[in-house]
This record gives sequence, structure tokens and C-alpha cells, in this order.
Amino acid sequence: MHDLNLNGIFPPVPTPFDSRGNLDLEGLAGNVARYNQAGLVGYIALGSNGEAVHLTTEESTQVIRTIKNAATPGRTIVAGVNEFTSRAAIQAIQRASDLGADAALVVTPYYYKGAMTQDALLRHYTAVADSSPLPVLLYNVPQNTGVVIEPATIASLSSHENIVGIKDSAGNMAALADTVRRAIEGFLVMVGNGAIFYPSLVMGAAGAVLAVACVAPNACVELYEAVTANEHTKARELHNRIAPLSQLVTANLGVAGLKAAMEIAGFTGGPPRSPLLDVGEPGRQMIRAVMRDTGLFPTVE
Amino acid sequence: MHDLNLNGIFPPVPTPFDSRGNLDLEGLAGNVARYNQAGLVGYIALGSNGEAVHLTTEESTQVIRTIKNAATPGRTIVAGVNEFTSRAAIQAIQRASDLGADAALVVTPYYYKGAMTQDALLRHYTAVADSSPLPVLLYNVPQNTGVVIEPATIASLSSHENIVGIKDSAGNMAALADTVRRAIEGFLVMVGNGAIFYPSLVMGAAGAVLAVACVAPNACVELYEAVTANEHTKARELHNRIAPLSQLVTANLGVAGLKAAMEIAGFTGGPPRSPLLDVGEPGRQMIRAVMRDTGLFPTVE
Amino acid sequence: MHDLNLNGIFPPVPTPFDSRGNLDLEGLAGNVARYNQAGLVGYIALGSNGEAVHLTTEESTQVIRTIKNAATPGRTIVAGVNEFTSRAAIQAIQRASDLGADAALVVTPYYYKGAMTQDALLRHYTAVADSSPLPVLLYNVPQNTGVVIEPATIASLSSHENIVGIKDSAGNMAALADTVRRAIEGFLVMVGNGAIFYPSLVMGAAGAVLAVACVAPNACVELYEAVTANEHTKARELHNRIAPLSQLVTANLGVAGLKAAMEIAGFTGGPPRSPLLDVGEPGRQMIRAVMRDTGLFPTVE
Amino acid sequence: MHDLNLNGIFPPVPTPFDSRGNLDLEGLAGNVARYNQAGLVGYIALGSNGEAVHLTTEESTQVIRTIKNAATPGRTIVAGVNEFTSRAAIQAIQRASDLGADAALVVTPYYYKGAMTQDALLRHYTAVADSSPLPVLLYNVPQNTGVVIEPATIASLSSHENIVGIKDSAGNMAALADTVRRAIEGFLVMVGNGAIFYPSLVMGAAGAVLAVACVAPNACVELYEAVTANEHTKARELHNRIAPLSQLVTANLGVAGLKAAMEIAGFTGGPPRSPLLDVGEPGRQMIRAVMRDTGLFPTVE
Repeated sequence: MHDLNLNGIFPPVPTPFDSRGNLDLEGLAGNVARYNQAGLVGYIALGSNGEAVHLTTEESTQVIRTIKNAATPGRTIVAGVNEFTSRAAIQAIQRASDLGADAALVVTPYYYKGAMTQDALLRHYTAVADSSPLPVLLYNVPQNTGVVIEPATIASLSSHENIVGIKDSAGNMAALADTVRRAIEGFLVMVGNGAIFYPSLVMGAAGAVLAVACVAPNACVELYEAVTANEHTKARELHNRIAPLSQLVTANLGVAGLKAAMEIAGFTGGPPRSPLLDVGEPGRQMIRAVMRDTGLFPTVE
Repeated sequence: MHDLNLNGIFPPVPTPFDSRGNLDLEGLAGNVARYNQAGLVGYIALGSNGEAVHLTTEESTQVIRTIKNAATPGRTIVAGVNEFTSRAAIQAIQRASDLGADAALVVTPYYYKGAMTQDALLRHYTAVADSSPLPVLLYNVPQNTGVVIEPATIASLSSHENIVGIKDSAGNMAALADTVRRAIEGFLVMVGNGAIFYPSLVMGAAGAVLAVACVAPNACVELYEAVTANEHTKARELHNRIAPLSQLVTANLGVAGLKAAMEIAGFTGGPPRSPLLDVGEPGRQMIRAVMRDTGLFPTVE
Repeated sequence: MHDLNLNGIFPPVPTPFDSRGNLDLEGLAGNVARYNQAGLVGYIALGSNGEAVHLTTEESTQVIRTIKNAATPGRTIVAGVNEFTSRAAIQAIQRASDLGADAALVVTPYYYKGAMTQDALLRHYTAVADSSPLPVLLYNVPQNTGVVIEPATIASLSSHENIVGIKDSAGNMAALADTVRRAIEGFLVMVGNGAIFYPSLVMGAAGAVLAVACVAPNACVELYEAVTANEHTKARELHNRIAPLSQLVTANLGVAGLKAAMEIAGFTGGPPRSPLLDVGEPGRQMIRAVMRDTGLFPTVE
Repeated sequence: MHDLNLNGIFPPVPTPFDSRGNLDLEGLAGNVARYNQAGLVGYIALGSNGEAVHLTTEESTQVIRTIKNAATPGRTIVAGVNEFTSRAAIQAIQRASDLGADAALVVTPYYYKGAMTQDALLRHYTAVADSSPLPVLLYNVPQNTGVVIEPATIASLSSHENIVGIKDSAGNMAALADTVRRAIEGFLVMVGNGAIFYPSLVMGAAGAVLAVACVAPNACVELYEAVTANEHTKARELHNRIAPLSQLVTANLGVAGLKAAMEIAGFTGGPPRSPLLDVGEPGRQMIRAVMRDTGLFPTVE
């Protein structure tokens, strides 16, 4: 049995670029150093919010290495794998393993959507997990991929000894609850959607990967702990603070909004890579207003 | 202020037909008599599961009257209103009021989907509520209508003194939680989707309208009470029993499946009206198997 | 064999209301009298653009009677049937037959979308056609219904001796061409979408039901005749004139826009019934500009 | 002004792999040699059917070089560019230019779908075209990307002197016709969808990129020439032969089906890369039956 610790909150760490669009590894290391102060269980490198698809192979390597080196020892390092073939995914996992990652978060292939039947997904993940040097987490993110892994498929894959969990970002509460109910005991469901973070914990999710945790890590950890302690009045109150900000930096403004919010909160943000557009000053005004309303950022006015 | 009691569980009572497709009012009255034994807060007449769109005006009148007469005094009677114009909706509410209904559940108009902007919905519901002799509940059921009332629109309508709540059947946990957060204090959110029944209560829903409550009313009431008592282990255990049956009689098999399940549970079911197709013996086998697995129906084998 | 003439252009005649929202039958008769001057093959009463779902049964009767009486003898009168059960559809066809309609245009049932499998549609249309006193036309309009009749199903139904054709408004060129190719010889495919009117004729459609033909009947007839005469340069030129107006009075502004455009062209338009909203003066400005650009309305400036 | 010749038929050349999943460049060269015998105007390298996303950068280079070298001089060589950032797209075009490609076919970025507004697409393509050493063709393929470039955006981009056309594979006849109508004179619209190949030519498309042309190049060329000659009876007859095969090797079975059909027609096909699944013997039976019905493959039985 694996001893991977996913129980708690992960920020999907964004990748900062400088004004010329090059990697800002110092800024990245500084962000992680600050995250180390919060009660986070670990970090996602090269997730969707990390602009994995915007990086070269060499840049991906530098990002994993930087996060691994900056993280307090003991934090779980999960490396995103965003590849279109089984063979390319296995190679990327090998690279991540060599860099010291603890697990690989493998997105569903998504270009030939019409061909991504549940059977094709089953075979792909089995092939990848069979050869993976790291424990595999499935990654369901239909907003970006247009592909859905169904609960029955996840349940079937949960029996593979090298597939230890899933990050489900779909925001489909019914499907996530179904997955928890149908997967084998010990399979770890991570909710990757701030809007249903709290109810997902209630339904049995082990942890969460939340864009909003890149901006407000402590509040996310507090909500997690409130649910664990069966303190639902407190949990709902925290949900109501976090939810509007979460919505703004994911569904509404996306990665560019998340980076702007991080800057406002004192982290290194920077511009996203083109074709993503900076949110501009109107976007920043909106973000500042929402952050103020949360009551979580005393210095934002 | 209204004193409408919606806090708890409502079954959306199906309308039984005999083998020639005519109304079986005796069967309907018998079902309600049996429901009176459970701790339900009231009944929905002419909802989606009541095949409202399959009935003539005269038949609709008979259905409301039958349910009203058969219900234990004090149970809240909500009449569904499924009309395409503001004027027709007002007339239908007037009829329901004359028959003793306590509230009207008014579906979004849905034929001219492209024209059903949030502004059009806002004006429609305002026009209906302005003239309605009964308190109005909004009804959001995009599976059937292809139209969504957004949380911001609901929040705005929640200020109307004659709009007291919503039945939200969309199954969108994030939107339902948003609605609870944004609507005015006292606005009643009823979840109309078994798959997210439990987490919706956690997020602040006042009650639930559940197809599965037509088959297993007691278990639904128990889950409601467990959440009220902050007993989440018990609640989750009940959720896991109910969810597969709920899914089968809604998303999978629909009204025809619900009627078959009711028959297996000893209620009057009967065939749906064409074009709905009976689930046949294979469907009944599937339903029986799932009902058996719930552990809630000792006589089903 | 039926001798129904559908080869050519049909306007889906809108139903005018006065300022209080009551039927304006005089305006309706006047519009038809003017349409009689164009080379149209017939009229659709109670189509989607006729606000069929906004009318009572008694009003529907008056609309069919008015169009029948106002039409030049020999024009084909098609009555729309928008009902949710097989039995109600048969009754509506009987009423239309009694009023002298030549054919019934039967929309797919659409409330229980999840249950409207191809098998359910096959059985429904077979049941309706078996009992229908009029030849039946299928009506595929997923923009309004969310339900699609697939080419294979249409091909199968084309063998029924009382199902003579389809009005396909989906705007799916590939599916329409597939339907023409797969249905039996003599089955009449009417395109109900102005954006693909011209290419549909090229692919073998027999005729067309076009909202834009309510505003510009002559140009639609000319395009039809150009294709028949293999004059494709002329046809494409006419398409380029008509297409922007067609788009405006269907996809963009819908029934309300169509009524406003008719008024600008000198027909009786009037407001739609609520919840449809009038397009207002900005909408009228836009329509006027587009009508002017077509070069088809010398008096519009 | 560019003098790019796109008027006619292009096959989107598949990339053959051997049984171990490695590039089969000899098979690729052999296929092109045979295509040289048909009246094709050129070749697409690294399109969707070329499994561009399944190749490494080095493999992509080898594929372009092989096709360029095998093609009869004078054939237009279009290189697909499937990248997620503006900067990566420009680098890929530079590589293609160095290898002698005549134009670049640049897919819309598609991972951050929610952020791919029309404005973002406009800026991305402008940035790419500003720096591109090759004439740029836009590539609209929402089946794979979930992103749509709208006709208004295309019309705006058509003014850029380095953006010469579009391959539109969406299958949306209305949008394609709109694009032809709204883009500047001389902008080249290539239809990338066999189901609407013929009507698109009627509406003014300059040429076509067709998976089915990889299997039946001559029939596609004949249809193109029939339309040019205004011989619509012949064109429709050819459409009816080609359409079922086209549907099978695109919408139904995809790249794996196309490769199997090519093998049956005597080309080198081979397996797709995982996660795409081979169609198996049942798929081959189906393909063989459809090919036989076309009457275009005398040796297939």
C-alpha cells in the first residue's frame, strides 16, 4: 500500500513569468516559501493553473525542481502530466519521478474527444499506471478537456494498485459523490473545484486542490478542519467567504485572474502567456472588491 | 409574511392512469393516504413526475382536488403550473387556489429557449407573482426545459413579497449554494434532485422535493432529520442507500421507472402516457435489484 | 398516394395580437391576403413562429379557420400540432382536419427529453400517423425542443403511408442531406432554416418553411426558382441578400423580431405574448438597417 | 499578394506507425507517391488526421520532410501547427518554413476554453501572423478543440495580409456560408468536413480538406470538378456515394477508422497511437461494407 498523504489542501501552484514571458523561478520559489507557512499538505506542480500546456519540457523540469526544492520536507509534491499519448505520459512521469515528485496527476487525453470512450480511458490509464514509477492520480477536468471520466470507470480503475486517487475538477457533486461511493476503500478523491469544496468534504472527499488556496490558503485549511471537527456552522460561514473569490479566479477570470489576485495578496503573480490575456485594471478592481468582501485580507482596500 | 411550511420532504406525486390511459383517481387517493403515514411536510401535485404536461385542464383540476382531499389536514399542498405565457400561468394559479392549494410551483417558460434571457424570466415571474392569489415558488428544471434561472436572477426575485422560494432540480450544487447565499433571508430553497439532496441540506436548503420520496418516503425523512441533528455519519449512510435508487427513477428511467418502483413498493403505479414508454420486465428486474440493495424494502426480493 | 403539394415556399404565419394581447384575426387575414399575391405554395398555421404554444385551443381553432378562409384556394394549408401526448396530438389533428387543413406538422414531444429516445419517437409518430385523418409531417426543431429526430429514424418513418415528409429546422446540413439520401423516394423534406435554405435545395429538399418568407416572400420564391433552373450565380446573390435578415428574425431576435420586421415591411405585426419581450426601438433600428441593406425593401430607409 | 494555390482537394495525410508504434516514413512516402497520381492540389501534413498531437517535435519534422520530398513539385504543402501559446506556434511555423512548407494551418489554442474569447483568438492569430514566415490559415475544429472562431472574427482577421484563409471543419454550413459572405475578397475558405463538402463548394468554398480524400481521392476531385462545371446531378450522385464513407472515417470511427480504410484501399495504414484504439475486425467489416456500397473500390468485396 502507498503511504501518500493527500488529506488536506493543495494549491495548484501557478507558474510566474516575467514581463518578457520568461520563467520567473525566483518568484515561484518565494511563493512556495510563503505557502510553507500555512497548513497545506502539499503542492501541485504543472496543473491547469500552472499553465502546464504553456511550458516546454525543459521549463516543466525547472518548475518541478523549483517547487520540490522550495517546499518544506514532508509536503507531498504532485506533478501534473498533460500529454496526448500513453507513451508520452509515461515519459513525463519518469521525468517527474527523477525530480523527486511523489505522485503524478495524469489528465485525460483530450484531442480526439469523440474517440475518448470510457473503454479508451480505461486502457490508457491502465497502460500508464502499469509502467509508471509514481503512484497515479486520475485528473478529470472537462472544462478544459471536454472529456469526462465516469464514476463507473473510476471505480474500475481504483482497483489498480498504482492508481491511488483522482482529482475531480468537474464541479459535478453527484458524480463526485458517486465516485466516493463506488471506488474501493482507500481510494482518494480530491475535489478540484472551489464551488463544491465544502459539500464534497461532507460527501467523503479526502482533500482538495483549489485555485483559491493559492490566494487564501489559511481559510481553505480552516474550512477543511471545521468539517473534520463536524463544525458545520463555521464551515458554512467560511464557505460563504471563500466562494465568491473562488468563482472569480476560476470560472470567471481563470488563470489570469488567479495571478492578479495573488499579486494583490502579496505573492508573485505576473502575466499569463499569450493567448491568455491579462485581466487589466477593471479585472483587478473587481478582484480587489471581492477580496475585501471576504474579510480575509485586512491589507486590501 | 407568508407562513408556508416547506421545511422537510415533499414527494412529487405521480398521476396514475389505468390500462386504457385514463385517470385513476382512486389509486391516487390511496397513494396519498399511505404517504400520510410518513413524516412528510406536504405534497406536490402536477409536478414533472405528475405528468402535468400529459393532462387536460379538467384532469389537472381532478388531480389537485383528489390530492387535497386525501391529504391529512395541515400538509402543504403545492400545485405545479406548467404554462407558456404569463397570462396562462396566472389562470392556472387561480384554478389551483380555488381548489385549496397553498402555493404554486411555476416552471420557467421553455419553448422559445433562445428568448428566455434572465431579463425575460425576471419580468415573467414578476408579472405572474404580481397577479397570483397564491405564494409563488420558482421552478428550475433545465433537464426538461433547457432553461436555467441563474442565482443572480433568483436573488433579485427573492425580494418580491409573493415569491417565497424555489424548487431547484438542476442538480448544480454550486448554483444552489450560490442561490442560498445570495437570496434574501427567509427565501426557501427546495432541492429537487436526489443526487445532491444531502449536500444541499448541508448548504442551507430548507427542504426537498424528491422522486425517490414517492417510493421510500421514510428514509428521505430520516436523512433530513439526521442533517438537522448534525448526525453526518448517519446521513451519509442513508445517502448511500438512497442514491442508487434515486438515480434509477430519475436520470435513468424517469417517470416510467418511478411508477414501476412504486408498484414494486406496493403503491399504485400504472403505465405512463405515450410517448413515455413502460420500462418493461427488464426495467422492473433492474429496479427490484436496486431496491433490494438499499435494504429499505424487506418484502422485495 | 397523397397529392400534397409542398414544392416551394411556405411562410410560418405569425399570429398577431392587439395591444391588450388578444387575437387580431383581421390583421391575420390581411397578411394572408397580401401573401396570396406572392408565388407561395401554401401556409403554415400554428408553427413556432405562429406562437402555437401561446394560444388556447379555441384561439388555435380561430387561427386555422382565418388562414384557411383568407388563403387563395389551392394553397396548401399545414396546421402545426404542438402537444405532449400521442392522444392529444391525434385530437389536435382531428380539429385541424375539421377546419380544412391539408396536413399536420407534428412537433416531437419535448418535456421528458431524457425519455425521448429514437424508439420513443418512432412509436409516437407511428401511433399518431395510424390514427391521423391528415397526412403527417414530422417536425424537427431542436432549438425549441432540445430533441432531435435522427436521419435513421426519419428514414424508417418515411415508409409509413400516412407520414409524407418532415420540416427540419435544425440547421444541420449534414443531417438534412442524410435524411434526403436515406428516406424513401417521394418523402418530402422541407428545410425550416433560412441559413441553409439554399444549400438544402441543392441537396434535394423539396421546399422550405422560412420565417424570412413572412417578410420577403418574393425573394424566397425567386431563390427557389433560381435553384430549380440551375442558376447558381443568381441563387447565391439572393442568398447573400436574404441571409442576414433571416438570421436577425430567427436566431438573433426570434418571433418578436419577425413581428417587428413584418410591421416595417407593411404587414400587421403587433407584440408577442409575454414572456416574449418586444424588441424595442433599438431592435427596430437594427432590423431597419438590415432590411435596407438587402435592397429588397425600396420604401425602408 | 500571396499566390498560394488551395483551389481543389487536399488529403489530411495520416501518419503511419509500425507495429511497435514507431514512425513508418517509408509507408508515408509510398502513400504520397500514390496520391501524386490523383488530381489533388496539395497535402496537409500534421493535421488532426495526421495525429499531430501524438508526435514529438523531431517526429513532426520528419513527417513534413517526408511529405515534402515525396510530393510532386508544385503541390501545395500545408503544415499543421497544434500549439498552445503564440510563441510556440511561431516557432513551429519557423520549423515548417525551414522544411519547405508553403503555408501553416494554425489550430485555435484550446486548453483554457473559457478564456478563448473571440478577442483572445483575434489577438493570438494577429500575433502569430505578424511573426510568421509563412502565410497563415486559421483552423476551426471544435469537435477536437471545443473552441469556435466566429465568422465575424474570421472576417476581421481576413484583412491581415499574412492570413490567407481558413480550414473550417466544424460542419456548420450556416457559419461557413457566413464566413464566405463576410470575409474580404480573395480570402480562401477550405471546408474540412466531408458531410458538407458539396454544399460548401456551392456556397463559395475554394477547396476542401477531406479525410475521405485519403481513401478515395479521385471521387473527391471529380465532385469538385462537377461543381465547377455546374453539373449538379453528377455532383449529387457523387456526394451520395462518398458521404457514408466520409461519415464512417470521421464522426464514427475517426483516425483509427481512416487508417483501416486506407489499408483496405491498398495504402499503408497501420495502428493509431494509444489512447486511440484500433477499430478491430468488426470495424473493418463495417468499413469494407460501406466501401463496397460506394461502387468506387472494384477490388473490395
